[in-house]
Amino acid sequence: MPRTRVEVYEEIFKDHNEVAGRVLEALEARGCGMVNVLGSPGAGKTSFLVALIRALAPLPCSVVEGDLESDIDAVALRKLGIDAHQINTHGTCHLDAIQVEALLPAIPAAARAVFIENVGNLICPVSFWLGEKARVLVASTTEGSDKPHKYPPAFAGSDLVVVNKVDLAEVMEFDRAFFERGLRAANPKARIVYVSSKHGTGIPEAAAIVRELLARKPA
Amino acid sequence: MPRTRVEVYEEIFKDHNEVAGRVLEALEARGCGMVNVLGSPGAGKTSFLVALIRALAPLPCSVVEGDLESDIDAVALRKLGIDAHQINTHGTCHLDAIQVEALLPAIPAAARAVFIENVGNLICPVSFWLGEKARVLVASTTEGSDKPHKYPPAFAGSDLVVVNKVDLAEVMEFDRAFFERGLRAANPKARIVYVSSKHGTGIPEAAAIVRELLARKPA
Repeated sequence: MPRTRVEVYEEIFKDHNEVAGRVLEALEARGCGMVNVLGSPGAGKTSFLVALIRALAPLPCSVVEGDLESDIDAVALRKLGIDAHQINTHGTCHLDAIQVEALLPAIPAAARAVFIENVGNLICPVSFWLGEKARVLVASTTEGSDKPHKYPPAFAGSDLVVVNKVDLAEVMEFDRAFFERGLRAANPKARIVYVSSKHGTGIPEAAAIVRELLARKPA
Repeated sequence: MPRTRVEVYEEIFKDHNEVAGRVLEALEARGCGMVNVLGSPGAGKTSFLVALIRALAPLPCSVVEGDLESDIDAVALRKLGIDAHQINTHGTCHLDAIQVEALLPAIPAAARAVFIENVGNLICPVSFWLGEKARVLVASTTEGSDKPHKYPPAFAGSDLVVVNKVDLAEVMEFDRAFFERGLRAANPKARIVYVSSKHGTGIPEAAAIVRELLARKPA
């Protein structure tokens, strides 16, 4: 009997989630937890990670950079003394657990947190669990306040929503109430922090929440 | 013999491109041309379209809005007196030609240009020709100057690259030379215009190029 589209998807995701489960276990065994960071192109995921990792110091952190092409972000992070690894997807719109598992031997044994900077895309990466303990969505005031209304799955699946570039909120006429209404409709539980990665606003609060998320027992 | 992944993709795209070809022909027969507008979430595609359509007046234009959920943009356009139609993809990361063909009867016969505002995504919509005569990529200074380096296919496939929010270029430390180096590496031929949809900067120039693109013979 031919399989339905839903059955085929379920089979693909079952295999994929087994790999992600192995990634989670391998990191747990080292006393390390992973955070999957999602967001649109240009939301400021890299700048946020730099500010966050500085605030988490002296916690040993590694970063995995996902991009279609280029190693711009990994090179920039290494120049700042941050352990960074690049995955190029060459056209694919998300990272998968197979790519992350293949990279595990390169992550230093001392690392206690691994941050995945996923491909800039507010849609496709949402469907792929990579073995992370927590998911952080980086939005930005410059993208406008309607994003949770237009892209609910990305917001629904996140533990923490970081609204970056808060220093530009006024000039961008960012409407916090409208943004939060959309966020709450998609996700009543997510934590939310307004940050400026450039000026440090909100970073200590975001770091405290990330520490909490990393300390959770895996579901 | 089982088909390879490439063969399966080729078959899917062959069927899809046939539908897109019908859309192109149906619109040509009415004296109308379609422009596919791509860009990241929050690049300012809708604001650009409003400014563009005003600059193209009295040309009768219609807009097709693609979003996962919500009709925020279509409602906003209609309030401004612009003919607008909403497609909700309910989770899918791009529009396809089947959706556009189904909408054609709703487009007024008087329309001479149809602008598709694709789902906000700098990756997936690139692969789907919808029957458009031209493709416009809306980037923005607030996304940073590295986007053509990181997402080359979106830039490679565009006839016109609009860099929006140029009024924020200075505060965002937008690096034009670096942006244009990346663009030229991906696409030596694309036209480029820096605009502020909010203040009208560059809009007459963008409108002149769109008129030219609409007047082209289809390839």
